[in-house]
Amino acid sequence: MTFPQRTLHHFAFDPHSRLVRLALGEKKLPFDEVPIKYWEPTDDLIRMNPSGLLPVLVELFDHGRTVTLCENRAILEHLDEAAPEIRLWPTDPQERGEARRLVGWFERKFDWDVNSLLLHEKMEKRLMGLGAPNLQNLRAGREALRDHLSYFESLLEARNWLAGRNLSFADFALASHLSVIDYFDEVSWDRFKHLKTWYMVIKSRPAFRPLLSDVLPGVAPSAQYKELDF
Amino acid sequence: MTFPQRTLHHFAFDPHSRLVRLALGEKKLPFDEVPIKYWEPTDDLIRMNPSGLLPVLVELFDHGRTVTLCENRAILEHLDEAAPEIRLWPTDPQERGEARRLVGWFERKFDWDVNSLLLHEKMEKRLMGLGAPNLQNLRAGREALRDHLSYFESLLEARNWLAGRNLSFADFALASHLSVIDYFDEVSWDRFKHLKTWYMVIKSRPAFRPLLSDVLPGVAPSAQYKELDF
Repeated sequence: MTFPQRTLHHFAFDPHSRLVRLALGEKKLPFDEVPIKYWEPTDDLIRMNPSGLLPVLVELFDHGRTVTLCENRAILEHLDEAAPEIRLWPTDPQERGEARRLVGWFERKFDWDVNSLLLHEKMEKRLMGLGAPNLQNLRAGREALRDHLSYFESLLEARNWLAGRNLSFADFALASHLSVIDYFDEVSWDRFKHLKTWYMVIKSRPAFRPLLSDVLPGVAPSAQYKELDF
Repeated sequence: MTFPQRTLHHFAFDPHSRLVRLALGEKKLPFDEVPIKYWEPTDDLIRMNPSGLLPVLVELFDHGRTVTLCENRAILEHLDEAAPEIRLWPTDPQERGEARRLVGWFERKFDWDVNSLLLHEKMEKRLMGLGAPNLQNLRAGREALRDHLSYFESLLEARNWLAGRNLSFADFALASHLSVIDYFDEVSWDRFKHLKTWYMVIKSRPAFRPLLSDVLPGVAPSAQYKELDF
């Protein structure tokens, strides 16, 4: 048995949770999973993370000591410090800063502009039994998504990877959010050529495989969701 | 002249900007300031940080090379890497994770629960010329604030500093948000004894001094805003 033993408390279609699954997979760090319905937070979750937000990573060491890491900011920084064999923050300070800016983009901007409308209406309302999507919100979410995708397209036209010359956590952040939205068939791939090519490459990485077999009960994935070549 | 020369693009009453001013002050790193009205983002700001969010820290090196760091996630991590003489992430992995969790709390939770109501109604509407505060939003923001303060009170009852045994970025994150809300006299200090004692200590640090002389045109600070002993 190798230590630390890692357990990830997560929800399969929470994009923030997906980022950590991808990061652990890319770093070849095995982990156990505890599925969490974040919209019905358990006492156990609140005890681990009082904000109730996901994901939470628990590391168990050989003498029973644990390290509990809540949400991506803490988890990603810890993983690159504790398991630096495969680094996912770039080493150059400007590119590292750029990667951190982009990871933050999804928490402070994409979540507000897109997820709180599009994912809330298409996924969360279903999970929480809140009824049919509000069409006005859906439309606003789609418009915001198009602006965000145009921005990422412009970055990927000029760069090898999202933050610059190196694959980084920023790529997995974008991929994790896109993958959930793509499950609901809300990405117009043909309008964003560079983004599509980049996504085909990152989707082919072994770390991505577990995500492609996730199923949300009652909702079939889009035709291209599982296809590596689409 | 010592390099890098640092320039902080910020708004004096943006709590996220205040966190970086406190961090730079605590680390004894001098910096120039460029005041930004974030609600009227300039082309220059958008070029530096396409999200339009604050703060942005630019480091100029001796051969004209610059490193641009956008928002707290990137700035705080960079500062502890590039200027580690005074570290503000704890060295113990659990306490470091705890400090990062708490810094993230303000971006993913406090901003949504409190600032988007209370600060929006009391400050942002005035800055943006959006008219009088909505009383229902104010009330909801105050209720959320009380819950958050109770939570911090419970942490500070059990700990020396917010994240544990050591002063960290987490303390400056809480202090930066409290300081703005206290300017508007929205903190019931006498109901939160541990929080009050902790705030008196952190407010006495030299890094805090510049914040205490900030003035928002047309709004006088609360009676205790500048008082170290209140």
